[in-house]
Amino acid sequence: MQARTSVAVIGASGYSGGELVRLLLGHPSAAVTRVGGASSAGSKLGEVHPHLLGSPAAELVLEPAEEIEGVDVAFLALPHGRSAELAPMLLDAGTRVIDLAGDFRLPASAYPEWYGFEHPAPAWLGKAVYGLPELFRDQVSGAELVANPGCYPTPVALGLSPLMLAGLLGPGPIIVDGKTGLSGAGRAATEALSYSATEESVRPYRFPAHQHTPEMERSLELATGSAPNVSFVPHLVPSVRGVLITAYARAAAGSTTATLTDALAAAYAAEPFVRVLPAGGMVDTKRTRGTNVVELQAVVDPRTGTAVVAGALDNLVKGAAGQAIQNLNLMLGVDETTALPTTAVYP
Amino acid sequence: MQARTSVAVIGASGYSGGELVRLLLGHPSAAVTRVGGASSAGSKLGEVHPHLLGSPAAELVLEPAEEIEGVDVAFLALPHGRSAELAPMLLDAGTRVIDLAGDFRLPASAYPEWYGFEHPAPAWLGKAVYGLPELFRDQVSGAELVANPGCYPTPVALGLSPLMLAGLLGPGPIIVDGKTGLSGAGRAATEALSYSATEESVRPYRFPAHQHTPEMERSLELATGSAPNVSFVPHLVPSVRGVLITAYARAAAGSTTATLTDALAAAYAAEPFVRVLPAGGMVDTKRTRGTNVVELQAVVDPRTGTAVVAGALDNLVKGAAGQAIQNLNLMLGVDETTALPTTAVYP
Amino acid sequence: MQARTSVAVIGASGYSGGELVRLLLGHPSAAVTRVGGASSAGSKLGEVHPHLLGSPAAELVLEPAEEIEGVDVAFLALPHGRSAELAPMLLDAGTRVIDLAGDFRLPASAYPEWYGFEHPAPAWLGKAVYGLPELFRDQVSGAELVANPGCYPTPVALGLSPLMLAGLLGPGPIIVDGKTGLSGAGRAATEALSYSATEESVRPYRFPAHQHTPEMERSLELATGSAPNVSFVPHLVPSVRGVLITAYARAAAGSTTATLTDALAAAYAAEPFVRVLPAGGMVDTKRTRGTNVVELQAVVDPRTGTAVVAGALDNLVKGAAGQAIQNLNLMLGVDETTALPTTAVYP
Amino acid sequence: MQARTSVAVIGASGYSGGELVRLLLGHPSAAVTRVGGASSAGSKLGEVHPHLLGSPAAELVLEPAEEIEGVDVAFLALPHGRSAELAPMLLDAGTRVIDLAGDFRLPASAYPEWYGFEHPAPAWLGKAVYGLPELFRDQVSGAELVANPGCYPTPVALGLSPLMLAGLLGPGPIIVDGKTGLSGAGRAATEALSYSATEESVRPYRFPAHQHTPEMERSLELATGSAPNVSFVPHLVPSVRGVLITAYARAAAGSTTATLTDALAAAYAAEPFVRVLPAGGMVDTKRTRGTNVVELQAVVDPRTGTAVVAGALDNLVKGAAGQAIQNLNLMLGVDETTALPTTAVYP
Repeated sequence: MQARTSVAVIGASGYSGGELVRLLLGHPSAAVTRVGGASSAGSKLGEVHPHLLGSPAAELVLEPAEEIEGVDVAFLALPHGRSAELAPMLLDAGTRVIDLAGDFRLPASAYPEWYGFEHPAPAWLGKAVYGLPELFRDQVSGAELVANPGCYPTPVALGLSPLMLAGLLGPGPIIVDGKTGLSGAGRAATEALSYSATEESVRPYRFPAHQHTPEMERSLELATGSAPNVSFVPHLVPSVRGVLITAYARAAAGSTTATLTDALAAAYAAEPFVRVLPAGGMVDTKRTRGTNVVELQAVVDPRTGTAVVAGALDNLVKGAAGQAIQNLNLMLGVDETTALPTTAVYP
Repeated sequence: MQARTSVAVIGASGYSGGELVRLLLGHPSAAVTRVGGASSAGSKLGEVHPHLLGSPAAELVLEPAEEIEGVDVAFLALPHGRSAELAPMLLDAGTRVIDLAGDFRLPASAYPEWYGFEHPAPAWLGKAVYGLPELFRDQVSGAELVANPGCYPTPVALGLSPLMLAGLLGPGPIIVDGKTGLSGAGRAATEALSYSATEESVRPYRFPAHQHTPEMERSLELATGSAPNVSFVPHLVPSVRGVLITAYARAAAGSTTATLTDALAAAYAAEPFVRVLPAGGMVDTKRTRGTNVVELQAVVDPRTGTAVVAGALDNLVKGAAGQAIQNLNLMLGVDETTALPTTAVYP
Repeated sequence: MQARTSVAVIGASGYSGGELVRLLLGHPSAAVTRVGGASSAGSKLGEVHPHLLGSPAAELVLEPAEEIEGVDVAFLALPHGRSAELAPMLLDAGTRVIDLAGDFRLPASAYPEWYGFEHPAPAWLGKAVYGLPELFRDQVSGAELVANPGCYPTPVALGLSPLMLAGLLGPGPIIVDGKTGLSGAGRAATEALSYSATEESVRPYRFPAHQHTPEMERSLELATGSAPNVSFVPHLVPSVRGVLITAYARAAAGSTTATLTDALAAAYAAEPFVRVLPAGGMVDTKRTRGTNVVELQAVVDPRTGTAVVAGALDNLVKGAAGQAIQNLNLMLGVDETTALPTTAVYP
Repeated sequence: MQARTSVAVIGASGYSGGELVRLLLGHPSAAVTRVGGASSAGSKLGEVHPHLLGSPAAELVLEPAEEIEGVDVAFLALPHGRSAELAPMLLDAGTRVIDLAGDFRLPASAYPEWYGFEHPAPAWLGKAVYGLPELFRDQVSGAELVANPGCYPTPVALGLSPLMLAGLLGPGPIIVDGKTGLSGAGRAATEALSYSATEESVRPYRFPAHQHTPEMERSLELATGSAPNVSFVPHLVPSVRGVLITAYARAAAGSTTATLTDALAAAYAAEPFVRVLPAGGMVDTKRTRGTNVVELQAVVDPRTGTAVVAGALDNLVKGAAGQAIQNLNLMLGVDETTALPTTAVYP
């Protein structure tokens, strides 16, 4: 019997960290052997995540992040800026790294403006692979360092790049209107994230400076060779999980709902995690909850020549932990769908 | 002591009808004397709307809509198509009409495409006043027939028209991304509106054919003299009340967040129901719940030259019943703010 | 023209404090002239409660609690333990006090066990009036110090005392099962109160030590002369406002749903804020939201001889700020319903 | 390779039916080969349950219930009364039946009062096994007909029976206060189940006549030999999944939180699906969502001599489909935990 790959989850006390551990409980060839968390070091994981009680993971003891070593692969689910410091040490010691923060997704020059820090390890930026498997699968398999995509950029890149490649979109900036549930803001306790302030509240936030904006532009450029301008407004809606993006672009002459839909369907016909809806179908975050699926639909408004792509996913799965495990599977050479659900717990 | 204006609420069993009755309970110079409802004729209003129990309105008996006559003003809160049939009879009998449906908001030629019926009373369309007081106050006072605006078009017209008039927007289509709570879909019992299907569900609907699209174009034309193209995608989010629109247009050269914000602030400085947020403020539907307030904010994304206006309101108040009462107040010549709350029940 | 009573709201930055200010905006004979808040002193009230923006109250500047003096009446909406220190100073200076905390509701001997502190002003406990107007109206009018009841005890005392007085309940302990929305836990930012932890979560808390337990026993004793034992389990449910209690007692021989319902209806026939449902009616927190109404229903289960009373209210209005203003109205000798809504914003 | 057991899900268009299909997708030794549904016969399952799109089950075509035959095991997820008609035909043809309705849980004499019909197959009632595996595991293995327990009775029977057997409870009626999410009311579209009527609404329903009342009494009698009286009040809370029961009984002399907790812990030490919380722990429906776990806690209130047991589960899994599959596993002689999750998707 073959030994299982040893995996560390660093930043295990947050929502993405908890989701990584949960999903990896069902992985036959990888096992979480170490867990790290800054403020909760010394606690058992079952104390920090009571929903894990009863699973073997509940007994794991959280360690200070910098003391974790000797594992085959480390997931970093840390606040922005921390990964950039920690990853090089792990990589130098031979551990492969999948970073769920934004620390390896952009060129070094972008970090001061969008993340507010000078990147401490620019040399590693050039070696990092952008881990969106449906677009960059070949690069992930052999990667040492994977930059796991953000929750908003994932459906944008998946939804628009086939249309750009097929010449179905016209020039001009792309508008992305995003809606997210509250878990996307992480586990921090603030009044703005409280139930009382959130129920019946729909509100934009952090516009025009959301750090996923340049990531959308860059991922589209990586996938298509041409770099669009993106203007992105995210909104909070009363939901826990779920990201829905609605992207608006100029339609190229001749583009119709049918040609866009066909282009998406053709691009993802063989993909287990992309569900392209037929014309008239409407994506729904609820159908993606707890799964690694992204739903996509495309429509052309012929009155105004506007092409619209909507995409829905679970921000903690396909938008974070699930996609990270999809990358792990590619790196390990196992079936890409291992341990990743595709059917939602519904309703 | 002066007699109070007698008012009928026709379509009183729905949400907008119930909200009209509730708000008019606090009106010193108008009184609901008749209530109409198709399926519930013969019931007391308190049976149909148990939250009204204990108020005098609870004892009113619902009558068939076509039997109501002899009142000074009638509010029509009926499904689209019914108002167009009923309003002419009331108007011919000398009753002033405020229609909350879409039946008098557009030119006759638009009804087959957007509402699916030939308009039965095109002569009245020319006499109807579009009842958005902040923009068309002068026309409302003497109107016999007021077309009360839709919930989505209200913040779009209020948010964009001052910017268009000031030359702050460039050419090209305007994108409107709408988010609404479930009460906007009315009181009908369908699985899609059930709690189980809606919680944790964010989804677009009825795109690109939502009937508020031509109303946005027309109200902007009425207010500014120039007719933009609008592409509009509405979304359902897990909330009861609240509409938030995010409108995207090309910014004119030189436009900044400050110039847009200043233009909005100047336009509405004297308006009791429009709250323009300072630069950096974020509108929130929760702060408008139960009130006749619309919150507006404006931002320019200089990277892409995109102007963004976000607007929030309570779809049943400023988006329906409250605005209708604001129009009533103008028609009666009383203080425009009579019976209209401006402070939300929060949280 | 008569001068309005000057009122201070101390603890104005919390939810109950904000609700006091909001409701008092509509009061014709009382005006909030001073607001106090520990952590937010120096801020304008509109910064702390953005939903108040646009109202005159938004411009009030928060002061340190201990610096407020010279008002006619002070509402204390402070954490437990703070009122007991502050109230005596205000009272000694001639300010009448309505305390929304639990600091003057119990005998001195109860504080160490249930609130965790020795009461610093036991002399004032004897002079405090328990401000449940429907039961103790006569005592409130002349009171200098009113202990405003807790949200859970209010419907328990109102629902059970008429049945006890009529001999409709048998001996033995009374079970009270409580359900509350999250605003009852206050405005503090903790992970347990976050949207992500709360949505889809139903859970008991603080059993068997909730401090409202002895208050239920004492208010029933004050109202009926006999002191029952109460066992109380509160639960959190995913809602913002709303408290529902379900109280279980042994039914006396001969008690039926009809006799219980009749007793409640008779007791509250003239009460503007108590809505007794006919047999078969089911109370609903949603119908009380934003109002000072408490809904009550009574049922006897003849199979087991169990009497059940359910009561619903808005914890921030009839359960806190609204009831406090009802007490203020009694103290000022104005109409008891002044500034207090009875019709909910619904849905 | 061994053939998989062929399974039919009859009543597949409802929530429990959909959940059965979803969970069975992961079952290695059973396969859904037929699906039945009254109103939706002829549709593909993926049209009725879009969240199943992409799975093999989505292609199954719904058949009229009475035409399904020739399978090894049939799950009946039908409205009450339909199973009692259909099950005998299936049983006579050699198909083993697991009924998720209430049609085989009670003695024949109880049906007119509690379910409103004369039982059409009383002979089968005597052969039906009450399928609560933790209590009646031995009887399930060989059963032809399993009556799958109701969502409310499951935690009541599991939580109270060990305490009754250990003599820790005193005499007298047991009070059960239940709270449920909306999915427990099924998939029917009614206004009462709409999002608008449900959000911010906490309300009791169907008291004192809920049909789970006699089932609680009977399951406790089956498990302990003594028959308590139960008085049961269910409540709707704004949640989709999740049932929480709080049961109140007289504590026997000497009973403490520790003795109750120990008795529960001892009873379920080896059970994979029962999580007994240590003293002080509070059950939470959110931690059980999507899993077959029931959480239990016990407390004694020494002031009043009241014993309290709280239990939480997912009404569609341990309260319906999951428990049914647990019974299937026993009937097939495979590992009882097959295809049944124990870790919730959280938050």
